[in-house]
Amino acid sequence: MIALDANGADRGAVTVAEGARRAGGSVTLYGPAAELADAGCPVVDAPVWISNAEEPVRAVRSKPEASIVQAARAVAEGRADAVVSAGSTGAMLAACTLHVKRLKGVNRPAVALLLPLPGRPTLLLDVGANVEVRPEHLVQFAYLGACFMEAVHGVERPSVGLLNIGEEPGKGTPDAVEAHERLAGGPLNFIGNVEGNALVQGAADVVVTDGFTGNVALKTMEGTAKVVVGAVRDTIRSGVVSSLGGLLVRRRLTGLRREVDPNTTGGAILLGLRGVAVVAHGSSNADGIANAVRLARRAVEERMVERTAEALRQAGVLRSAAAASVGAGHG
Amino acid sequence: MIALDANGADRGAVTVAEGARRAGGSVTLYGPAAELADAGCPVVDAPVWISNAEEPVRAVRSKPEASIVQAARAVAEGRADAVVSAGSTGAMLAACTLHVKRLKGVNRPAVALLLPLPGRPTLLLDVGANVEVRPEHLVQFAYLGACFMEAVHGVERPSVGLLNIGEEPGKGTPDAVEAHERLAGGPLNFIGNVEGNALVQGAADVVVTDGFTGNVALKTMEGTAKVVVGAVRDTIRSGVVSSLGGLLVRRRLTGLRREVDPNTTGGAILLGLRGVAVVAHGSSNADGIANAVRLARRAVEERMVERTAEALRQAGVLRSAAAASVGAGHG
Repeated sequence: MIALDANGADRGAVTVAEGARRAGGSVTLYGPAAELADAGCPVVDAPVWISNAEEPVRAVRSKPEASIVQAARAVAEGRADAVVSAGSTGAMLAACTLHVKRLKGVNRPAVALLLPLPGRPTLLLDVGANVEVRPEHLVQFAYLGACFMEAVHGVERPSVGLLNIGEEPGKGTPDAVEAHERLAGGPLNFIGNVEGNALVQGAADVVVTDGFTGNVALKTMEGTAKVVVGAVRDTIRSGVVSSLGGLLVRRRLTGLRREVDPNTTGGAILLGLRGVAVVAHGSSNADGIANAVRLARRAVEERMVERTAEALRQAGVLRSAAAASVGAGHG
Repeated sequence: MIALDANGADRGAVTVAEGARRAGGSVTLYGPAAELADAGCPVVDAPVWISNAEEPVRAVRSKPEASIVQAARAVAEGRADAVVSAGSTGAMLAACTLHVKRLKGVNRPAVALLLPLPGRPTLLLDVGANVEVRPEHLVQFAYLGACFMEAVHGVERPSVGLLNIGEEPGKGTPDAVEAHERLAGGPLNFIGNVEGNALVQGAADVVVTDGFTGNVALKTMEGTAKVVVGAVRDTIRSGVVSSLGGLLVRRRLTGLRREVDPNTTGGAILLGLRGVAVVAHGSSNADGIANAVRLARRAVEERMVERTAEALRQAGVLRSAAAASVGAGHG
């Protein structure tokens, strides 16, 4: 069963319920029962929610009745297989860290997202949970991301890159240089530094970075795709729509818009937890919610958490330079 | 006179010479005289150059005969009004910091670039010179960027934003929060935090950030524009080229490609120095070089350096929260 938070989505609880319907399968909604009478699936009445403006950890502690907290607890207590929300990422992270808890050896859960771009799928993490990280966290992110791509997307021995400002190993901040060293000495399929342009051109299956840089890169990508697609669309609209060429290009643009639409990838997944948690885009439509539910379900079916735990354990056994840092965390 | 480094450009010294010709006006080339016999402008024979792979400060010190060093010294000694190069940004920065020198009160020169995107021009800095900065450096970048947009692009009271992962003042790293506070309390037209999508959608005239984040954002933007334009172009090429719609869209795409082409903006400008220095994209064609020369010339004609020095002096006089930090630098 997927515990689906019906609060916090820009388009309201009814859109979330419609998303649950489209996803099919077993879903329980956590939200305002008054609005969810026609949901067509079980509803746990939880009208209280946590907004983006609240300090997440404090809000999660002070509002145990909030829908996101109840949904996370359902996972923690084995009543649900995964939790999905289109609300605050911070609240989800706090609720899951507090109740679902981190995997052994993981210092910081990360928010990971498949970049909504045409071409080879690339997982970027962290995209906002950890604004400041140490090199050992970046190494952990690399393991978490690689396990996700292997388990959920069937990528064998995923290539891993480090987002940086140059390809050479010595480029970037001292932390980036150290992370590069550790990753290069470890057992993962590390391909080295990846610059911003290579990131969006599919240079690696997994790209790790701190949450500040990752968030800026992700939003810059989304914004640029929108600006460029918009500029082309404006031209097509201005008089040439009826021509065959215009129509064909327009169809392709619709495809592109879908590819660069955050609704398509189903949202971000929280990695490093003892359970599956997916955060859909706040502006998700019903299809976006449905894709988020499907993503969560796939992670459950493919035993992502168990496989990640096992990989971290094995890495510990290997005692390589990179693996040794897993669980080292001095803070 | 503009001192133009003919070394280091991907397309070679002859392309640089062609760029000088297209720019017109008074230009002296610093490069291999043997290749520049037909340049049509004065040449200072300087075959030695500094590559991207060399450690910039060390290379600049150990190779006083390198073309970029000689060109920077020409500016320092008043024989040239500005220096332009399509070579290593690091070498340019090192040569200029050592010879042209920083403006009084400036701790760190910054590399600034007009984003090559359709719509309102946005200056982003730093895009790579300073991978780690303190809040007071970000405040200085704001002054430097605002002075540039005012002097060279005629923007009155330019709006300034801080690149961050949320709009709220408390978002981001502790350094970002502190920079926000200082900027909000200062005399600049500070509009607050700007996220990655707002950056590329023209939310502010000037956006400041550290060189790591700025470099990643810039390259992510360039890469995404390329990927999206490429995807549309592929469709048009696949059979519908001859139709009117296809042709019109194709023409618009050519325009867009030009707008998202780093050659158009003339390259990055180094701000905070006692002289004008422009770094053209390494892959610049002759037009890119010509635009870089024109950018440098405009900065000279509009007395950018003098006006920046005056603005920094006045900010010091104002003794505002933000201004007080100018020159404070404890390191």
